[in-house]
Amino acid sequence: MTDPNPPDKLLFTPGPLTTSTSVKQAMLHDAGSWHSDFGERVRRIRQKLLSLAELSRADGWEVIPLQGSGTYGVESVFASCVPPEGKVCVLANGAYGERMAVILEHLKIRHTVLRSPENETPNLTLLEQTLSQDLAITHVAAVHCETTTGILNPVEEMGQVVRRHGCLFVVDAMSSFGGIPIDVEAAGIDFLISSPNKCLEGVPGFCFVLGRRYTFLAHEKFARSLSLNLADQLRGFDKNGQFRYTPPTHALLAFEQALKELDLEGGIAARAARYQHNHAVLLSGMQQIGFKPYLSPAVQSHIITAFHYPNNPHFRFLDFYQRLSDSGFIIYPGKISRADTFRIGTIGHLFEPDFRRLVAAIRLAVEADNIKMFPADNGSPEISAFHQPI
Amino acid sequence: MTDPNPPDKLLFTPGPLTTSTSVKQAMLHDAGSWHSDFGERVRRIRQKLLSLAELSRADGWEVIPLQGSGTYGVESVFASCVPPEGKVCVLANGAYGERMAVILEHLKIRHTVLRSPENETPNLTLLEQTLSQDLAITHVAAVHCETTTGILNPVEEMGQVVRRHGCLFVVDAMSSFGGIPIDVEAAGIDFLISSPNKCLEGVPGFCFVLGRRYTFLAHEKFARSLSLNLADQLRGFDKNGQFRYTPPTHALLAFEQALKELDLEGGIAARAARYQHNHAVLLSGMQQIGFKPYLSPAVQSHIITAFHYPNNPHFRFLDFYQRLSDSGFIIYPGKISRADTFRIGTIGHLFEPDFRRLVAAIRLAVEADNIKMFPADNGSPEISAFHQPI
Repeated sequence: MTDPNPPDKLLFTPGPLTTSTSVKQAMLHDAGSWHSDFGERVRRIRQKLLSLAELSRADGWEVIPLQGSGTYGVESVFASCVPPEGKVCVLANGAYGERMAVILEHLKIRHTVLRSPENETPNLTLLEQTLSQDLAITHVAAVHCETTTGILNPVEEMGQVVRRHGCLFVVDAMSSFGGIPIDVEAAGIDFLISSPNKCLEGVPGFCFVLGRRYTFLAHEKFARSLSLNLADQLRGFDKNGQFRYTPPTHALLAFEQALKELDLEGGIAARAARYQHNHAVLLSGMQQIGFKPYLSPAVQSHIITAFHYPNNPHFRFLDFYQRLSDSGFIIYPGKISRADTFRIGTIGHLFEPDFRRLVAAIRLAVEADNIKMFPADNGSPEISAFHQPI
Repeated sequence: MTDPNPPDKLLFTPGPLTTSTSVKQAMLHDAGSWHSDFGERVRRIRQKLLSLAELSRADGWEVIPLQGSGTYGVESVFASCVPPEGKVCVLANGAYGERMAVILEHLKIRHTVLRSPENETPNLTLLEQTLSQDLAITHVAAVHCETTTGILNPVEEMGQVVRRHGCLFVVDAMSSFGGIPIDVEAAGIDFLISSPNKCLEGVPGFCFVLGRRYTFLAHEKFARSLSLNLADQLRGFDKNGQFRYTPPTHALLAFEQALKELDLEGGIAARAARYQHNHAVLLSGMQQIGFKPYLSPAVQSHIITAFHYPNNPHFRFLDFYQRLSDSGFIIYPGKISRADTFRIGTIGHLFEPDFRRLVAAIRLAVEADNIKMFPADNGSPEISAFHQPI
């Protein structure tokens, strides 16, 4: 007999993530979105997000929660904060940078894409040259932690170049905000987009954008979308503290609880330390089994780690995935164009014992399928013809 | 002493609504959005929505769930299913019709708005004339139940005119689908947008669009937004059954449960009967107190009812609202431009006893504030200078 109510599988993914029971229990209430009590909760959430970013309304900063997934947040910045004559330079070293370019194509905004290999951070010399030569560029957009590989892009160095050329800097910090300290002002970030269901350990349903009030409002006449119009969304909050359109009330109640739990843990520094430890335990365990990370340690984040497939014809990712799933662990397929990898996230409501159990399950899965690991001396495995569905 | 854990106030609003405990409990799980189990749940939800609409994939129909609020769903149809040379005729008799026009302005889509008074259904003679004269019009868009007033627009009659002129018919059925039977094919509806957190009694976080496969894909090259690109969203489901971008997993789990509970209740006809009864109990009780509905019975839906303020200088909506809130009942402010009204919704997980208790609380509130009702013979009250914040 199987358990009719098995516990949830643990999610070692880039999100949605495993959240605490108390975060989920906060959703056992129906809140009236027009009611003052809910408005007060939204106000506190917005205030807390600013303070987590060490920003203040007194200095002109605002945070705008927006219904939809993180991609909606990125699109909202382009759709409502880039003027008709604007041009965006995208730094891309993974799928989320590439997605920015696709958004800009849809919005018919002029843009140029500076690509670097998925295992390298952006070429800042090339960025410098590009901004020097193409004076039409008004905005530079980049991804902080590219979950395609788990690479951590150097947001402060990038920001210095952007600022030197007088452009605005748009940063997708979806998977890093709350799990990696970010000095928004030192990095010269003008728009930071993130999500409640990554390092802040809430549930999905909305995203949020941090920025200065005047940058949100500067081009409101030219907004290319009503739903994604950040100026209008901000003016809605100004007017009565409410979302313009039906918010995901339950996700917001969960987020309020998640923010309390972040405080109880000790804030962003403490959470970053837990994730770093999760990552260290995972990496050490995986290397003992014989798995090789895709990235070099110098650029690897503690958010998510891509591992090469074993260089072994017996390895079938979907079999491996299923064995781990049967043991209660959900890992993530790879998304890298140049190598066969799978990914394991180290964020969410997960702790050292969870990673020790995961590593033990991976060892058993490898042994059960008689997968031989890479010989110790062959370096990175070659790319097989098999590509992942994502 | 006050109860530290008071029960949730009941929501007599147009949504988010009061949902069942079991719907909320379905959110006590973290689902991996890439995992096959979740994909299977999404597949079943999509199948169930089609069958509720009595539509079939075999006849080319698809349903596309989309992250965001209902407004995102309306915008998604315009943004991705109207070609560059398209022109939309909007029938507006309330705030949601007007919002369609604002969306079209943002998207720079040519459009014309045929307005009718908020207490009258659209002028179909004018629609007929307009479609005869302006051959550039490709789409007609209307709201089924305008929650501004609660008016029920005659979707089948409108659809016949639209079809006769060879246009596509876009219907915002946000607050009606699931609570009022709609014959999509008989009404000639090409795109129907609705929401899980209205008559289907789920929680907010996404919306969905019903339409034919070819109408979703016909203009995909011209989509004006990536996040709201329905063709791309559909192709994502085609590819692997998954949302392209992080879905609100908990809201989808709640929706799966909500759809089961709709079946247990007896389907849309049984739910419509409950809402009709809720409405009848409310209306009778309110009229006994002396409140007058804004609409004539001929056009009043059983979804939400607007009541005139008492024609009495002692009446303060916010005091009235607060008294009811203190008693555990949340009602809704008015949104009508030509009259001072408040609104009471009759949808959600609410039953006759809830309406009897609400009416009793309203009677007490009126007596407590010594509000005299309208004299029996003065007809509709005049408009006061006081306007609602929404």
